[in-house]
Amino acid sequence: MQYAFELEFGVRDYECDLQGVVNNAVYLNYLEHTRHEYLKTLGLDFAGLHRQGCDLVLTRCELDFKSPLRSGDLFVVRLNLSRESRLRFAFFQDIYHLPDQRLVLQAKAIGTGLIGGRPALPPQLQAVLAGGGGPNP
Amino acid sequence: MQYAFELEFGVRDYECDLQGVVNNAVYLNYLEHTRHEYLKTLGLDFAGLHRQGCDLVLTRCELDFKSPLRSGDLFVVRLNLSRESRLRFAFFQDIYHLPDQRLVLQAKAIGTGLIGGRPALPPQLQAVLAGGGGPNP
Amino acid sequence: MQYAFELEFGVRDYECDLQGVVNNAVYLNYLEHTRHEYLKTLGLDFAGLHRQGCDLVLTRCELDFKSPLRSGDLFVVRLNLSRESRLRFAFFQDIYHLPDQRLVLQAKAIGTGLIGGRPALPPQLQAVLAGGGGPNP
Amino acid sequence: MQYAFELEFGVRDYECDLQGVVNNAVYLNYLEHTRHEYLKTLGLDFAGLHRQGCDLVLTRCELDFKSPLRSGDLFVVRLNLSRESRLRFAFFQDIYHLPDQRLVLQAKAIGTGLIGGRPALPPQLQAVLAGGGGPNP
Repeated sequence: MQYAFELEFGVRDYECDLQGVVNNAVYLNYLEHTRHEYLKTLGLDFAGLHRQGCDLVLTRCELDFKSPLRSGDLFVVRLNLSRESRLRFAFFQDIYHLPDQRLVLQAKAIGTGLIGGRPALPPQLQAVLAGGGGPNP
Repeated sequence: MQYAFELEFGVRDYECDLQGVVNNAVYLNYLEHTRHEYLKTLGLDFAGLHRQGCDLVLTRCELDFKSPLRSGDLFVVRLNLSRESRLRFAFFQDIYHLPDQRLVLQAKAIGTGLIGGRPALPPQLQAVLAGGGGPNP
Repeated sequence: MQYAFELEFGVRDYECDLQGVVNNAVYLNYLEHTRHEYLKTLGLDFAGLHRQGCDLVLTRCELDFKSPLRSGDLFVVRLNLSRESRLRFAFFQDIYHLPDQRLVLQAKAIGTGLIGGRPALPPQLQAVLAGGGGPNP
Repeated sequence: MQYAFELEFGVRDYECDLQGVVNNAVYLNYLEHTRHEYLKTLGLDFAGLHRQGCDLVLTRCELDFKSPLRSGDLFVVRLNLSRESRLRFAFFQDIYHLPDQRLVLQAKAIGTGLIGGRPALPPQLQAVLAGGGGPNP
């Protein structure tokens, strides 16, 4: 599998819950942070877009939890971005434990933009989506 | 739609992100807390099960974000539980804004139990799942 | 001790860390939420103030951790508000486990307002602070 | 000022609240993570200690918020560790914005260990504390 972007992390102890594993909700944090860092490489700043009146929002998220992360674990979040429909984009995001590349989580996050409260994608994102990419190039 | 359980919440300001809406990851917190409170009504305590060597874990979660929650909003999380397969259960969880019952989120959370590291459901949960229930009775 | 306001909570499992107790950082969430709910009773809405260009911010916080909270625990956060200096207010906040009133945490949170980026207190808060109150009435 | 350890971070967007700045509680996450990474350099693993029956816990924390962190900011957490009393240690932790070294937060976190529920420090930590160090050597 080829990915368009990846970001490495280490588990922080406060992210683990009473079961001693990273809490399910925290994976959405990891996924969001990786998407936002990727968007920056495209010239899109999530906070800057918000200040300009454009909010990128998720409309659907699918998460398959394959194996847990624990205190001290290193991992990488990899992603691809593709067009889902005229006004929707999809991030395919996989998390792998390091260094053994064990699969931890597979996710698909579908989103859109809201400009002035109406669905619309910012031009830079339109351009990226028009250029193809995605999980099965 | 009939639900087996519901729990009311108010948005806390620290749950809102720089867009001024509840952050996506926080919905997993709301959903988890509601599941755990429901499990208590069945005599199942998440933390107690962990101490006894049984961990309830999610294997998949689907989230459809329908409308945002903001500072000061009241909402209710409603759920049904059904058997998904021999060793898997499924929670169907819907969040509604109060008092207008606007739909905020629909989720399906599939999980299993791990006893001594192997998939297995605790007997009390087996009994509940055998009794039927679920989202389309 | 007389308090001006109190708010009851239940520990949510996702707030507990791998030690099985509520993580230290989560207490700041509890304290903030209680302050914001109290401010509402004074006609001050934290999010609304932000939209109007006034941000209430903390400048100092002292926390004494007396005993832990665990999964399933009920507790109450009680508070008093007093003037700390011309442009600073102080919240004295104590957390007690319920129903046994065991002391969990004592905190002093000092803050100010920023209007257009400069320290200033909103008029409603000025009025409350002028009226006295505080921890040793 | 000489520090015994430092760790660099970038603000993640989900750590910012509706004011557009890093939420106060999140600073305790940054401070904790930095302490735990430092402890690892001393051969002390927070999660491993817990599994062995020794919990390191905070008893008091003082935080002075000097300037905010925002989306996209880089920063460093620096620390020193010293003995506070026979059974207590103190971390002095300062956060600086990068690359301009603007002071963001100053903190003092006092803690102890609990072995079998009784205050006691693990031998490796005793050795470090006996060796001196601290913020004003």
